[in-house]
Amino acid sequence: MARLNSRSQLVAGLAFWFSLWLCAESGKLLVMPQDGSHWLSMQVVVEKLAQKGHEVVVVMPENTLVMQTSSEHFTVRTHSVPYTQEKLNELLSSMTEHALKNLNFLENMVQMYINISQVTTMFISACRHLLYDKELIQFLQQSDFDAVFSDPVLPCAPILAEYLSLPRVYFLRGLPCHLDFQAAQCPSPISYIPEAFTNNSDHMTFTERVKNVLMSILASLYCYSYYGKYEHLATEFLQRKITLLELFGKASIWLIRQDFAFDYPRPVMPNMVFIGGINCAQKKPLSKEFEAMVNSSGEHGIVVFSLGSMVSEIPMKKAMEIAEAFGTIPQTVLWRYTGETPPNLAKNTKLVKWLPQNDLLAHPKARAFITHAGSHGVYEGICNAVPMVLMPLFGDQMDNAKRMESRGAGVTLNVVEMTSKDLSDALKAVIYDKKYKENIQRLSALHLDRPIEPLDLAVHWVEFVMKHKGAPHLRPAAHDLNWIQYHSIDVIAFLLAVVLLALFISLKCCLFCCRKCCCKSGRMSKKSKSKSH
Amino acid sequence: MARLNSRSQLVAGLAFWFSLWLCAESGKLLVMPQDGSHWLSMQVVVEKLAQKGHEVVVVMPENTLVMQTSSEHFTVRTHSVPYTQEKLNELLSSMTEHALKNLNFLENMVQMYINISQVTTMFISACRHLLYDKELIQFLQQSDFDAVFSDPVLPCAPILAEYLSLPRVYFLRGLPCHLDFQAAQCPSPISYIPEAFTNNSDHMTFTERVKNVLMSILASLYCYSYYGKYEHLATEFLQRKITLLELFGKASIWLIRQDFAFDYPRPVMPNMVFIGGINCAQKKPLSKEFEAMVNSSGEHGIVVFSLGSMVSEIPMKKAMEIAEAFGTIPQTVLWRYTGETPPNLAKNTKLVKWLPQNDLLAHPKARAFITHAGSHGVYEGICNAVPMVLMPLFGDQMDNAKRMESRGAGVTLNVVEMTSKDLSDALKAVIYDKKYKENIQRLSALHLDRPIEPLDLAVHWVEFVMKHKGAPHLRPAAHDLNWIQYHSIDVIAFLLAVVLLALFISLKCCLFCCRKCCCKSGRMSKKSKSKSH
Repeated sequence: MARLNSRSQLVAGLAFWFSLWLCAESGKLLVMPQDGSHWLSMQVVVEKLAQKGHEVVVVMPENTLVMQTSSEHFTVRTHSVPYTQEKLNELLSSMTEHALKNLNFLENMVQMYINISQVTTMFISACRHLLYDKELIQFLQQSDFDAVFSDPVLPCAPILAEYLSLPRVYFLRGLPCHLDFQAAQCPSPISYIPEAFTNNSDHMTFTERVKNVLMSILASLYCYSYYGKYEHLATEFLQRKITLLELFGKASIWLIRQDFAFDYPRPVMPNMVFIGGINCAQKKPLSKEFEAMVNSSGEHGIVVFSLGSMVSEIPMKKAMEIAEAFGTIPQTVLWRYTGETPPNLAKNTKLVKWLPQNDLLAHPKARAFITHAGSHGVYEGICNAVPMVLMPLFGDQMDNAKRMESRGAGVTLNVVEMTSKDLSDALKAVIYDKKYKENIQRLSALHLDRPIEPLDLAVHWVEFVMKHKGAPHLRPAAHDLNWIQYHSIDVIAFLLAVVLLALFISLKCCLFCCRKCCCKSGRMSKKSKSKSH
Repeated sequence: MARLNSRSQLVAGLAFWFSLWLCAESGKLLVMPQDGSHWLSMQVVVEKLAQKGHEVVVVMPENTLVMQTSSEHFTVRTHSVPYTQEKLNELLSSMTEHALKNLNFLENMVQMYINISQVTTMFISACRHLLYDKELIQFLQQSDFDAVFSDPVLPCAPILAEYLSLPRVYFLRGLPCHLDFQAAQCPSPISYIPEAFTNNSDHMTFTERVKNVLMSILASLYCYSYYGKYEHLATEFLQRKITLLELFGKASIWLIRQDFAFDYPRPVMPNMVFIGGINCAQKKPLSKEFEAMVNSSGEHGIVVFSLGSMVSEIPMKKAMEIAEAFGTIPQTVLWRYTGETPPNLAKNTKLVKWLPQNDLLAHPKARAFITHAGSHGVYEGICNAVPMVLMPLFGDQMDNAKRMESRGAGVTLNVVEMTSKDLSDALKAVIYDKKYKENIQRLSALHLDRPIEPLDLAVHWVEFVMKHKGAPHLRPAAHDLNWIQYHSIDVIAFLLAVVLLALFISLKCCLFCCRKCCCKSGRMSKKSKSKSH
């Protein structure tokens, strides 16, 4: 009994010291995520941080697409928004509809501008609702957070972080028109860094480089025109002039969901941490239902088909074309689809409302992956070395598809123009042509051979910023220079002026000497002439 | 007995599988180190790789300063050199002597040029001996290595690696005139990246930026003049024209001994791995002799003094000044010194032929560290949070000292000009003025809070290159562009030409229209005039 007592005392003592250690090490984190697929990988980091004993408060709008407004892991605070859940769903449907229309480049750009304008108007007013929610802001001010952890694709969090004077960690795939790299003072040579929507790779012909430069000008105009609204809001709310680049430029750490096994290598900054493939971390065994489906596929294996968390329905005509293609292959196809069942659906095709994408791809029987080429899906394909058929719809998906294709690990199809035969041919190619499997295995090996897992890296850097109140030692001095100073234009002008002045003086001296000599010889010759006269 | 047998069978079986696994994972590495302090931290990585089961062959010259030509961990192959051990030691002494002379900037530059020329001539002829050592080269060719791991400060290894067509990992503190960053296609804005020997920090005034630009031009001339000789040797040996930047640019991975807690943040490339502070990894308990010395220091603690692995003697006059200063402080001073004992040596000062620097600094009684500001020493000071008195002698030491001083973690002294009082004051400042300790503790905390230890990182990337035969996915496309293409000068010129042509045509059209109008109105007015007449 005495022994038992001493043991329970020991356990209690250990628990006390552990809790003390936990308190000493744990901090308070404000999280401001972005709705949609963006949240899926950020959530994993937030949950891990909460599990490590940090107090996490997630601020989100009351109406969301995929974010749950309650969690067992962290506190959720919602703010009102000026739109209903229906309106939000409608917006998403209209974006999908647009992606499935057969538009030319110009129509596409106009439609994209309309979509982005709609999204911006909606979200900027949501941001305004948040910033002017006095009760919530007072709560955040009094909460004494150590840092803000946010997805800055819609820059509401940077404004709030600036207002609360908190160090910030950004979690993102990338910002339009390289705003992230610009704000981090990272050089981006346009000669080999392809612009979004150009279909360029990092190796470009002269024509492609011209297109790249023109597109970068267009993208800057495009992007400043809608991000500019946030600049106005920030200036109004903070009551002082502040630019977008200043706002973004105060990031302590950029956690970027990129990896150079997939993305093109380019200059980076010391406060950029690359965590591409972080979404592959969550692996679970398959449920009995899926296990049974996979096992019943026999030696031919399975094909996984999903157009992402945001798109689960497509027009019936397109669905029938796709169903027809699936009938031509011997593999079992698992298709995430919530729409009406196409009447020509073959026996080998199973429609499911949701599928454990990463776990299915991790199964040795996975033969191919049909994806909309969202970055999450593509990374899951790479992690699990499954060759892909890519059907990009919008956003960065075209560029992701281009990257996979240029690495010989997938075939891209235009979802609008493709026929049933195109899809069937593409599937047969990636399944039976060995080069696709070999290429994706090579990429996978490069991607997975890393000294530390992306999730641990992300958690480390968030904790670092919380503990040290930022990462000032990683902030380049470039932030304190203006454009002229940064490019040394003043120094070059000064040195040029000095050289020109020196040349001018030398020239003048020479001319003076020459004139002296000429005069002398002139006078001499005059003298000699007068003498001879 | 039967049980014992089955157990030993199990052990034998396990050992067999383990050895199979080891063979499958282990590779063959060619190491080409650089003599002097450079070898000290590289050796740790090489030994760890050997311990992990890789077959390591180290190629070194027969006469060396600090490298041992035999090792229990790896195979050493030596090559002949055209100088004796005495000549090598003499060269080192002359460099130390020069550093302790009171020279002005110009004299210093000239002396440095002479020193570098001497070193280059010696080492380039050593390199020639190695490259034309038929037997050794044949052995290396037949050895079927997976990669070359080398310190490229003297670029003999890059030439050999090119000849053997092997992927290469470079281990370095940095190359002169940013050759490393240039070769890796990494942008280096001169407006905030200080040039060596300028005493500039990353925050520069206009004058300092002018000095920086001028120094960069000078450094390029300087550096190409002596590295150019290696370019000639490479072209001669490889029997094809190859430039220095091409040679260096083929690096798969750059393991750079820098850390941004100490070095200034700047753009970097994805194939650069920062492992500053790697030399702090080797910690051992103090020997009884040193433990006794440290313990006898009482509450005042100890001061550690070393001018590095290469300098252990100084002129008697200077030694007496230093000894006098040590007499004014209550701490016990441990001084690495092999010269004649200064007659005025105080009781608190112990002269030792060698000292376990990192282990002494790690002791809680360490109060200050007097160092020549070599990068190894400075990192050991940072790792162990010991404030420093810096006495730079040559190479990058002046810049290292400037960095520590600009971070408020040390006091720099000019070893030639300093008086006994200067040293005494500096020591008292760093020991008793709390700000030095606080600053070094802050730097130390930032430096040590990392997701993975530098040694593990270095080992990982060497193994990565061995396994994947390089790291092609980290090679930016910039390598395939010429200077004009890289800076998009052709594209800008083309677009400018198009704009000018468009303007010209518009102008011509306008002029044509105007003329038409004028002619018409002229004719009209003429007509009306004629009518009126």
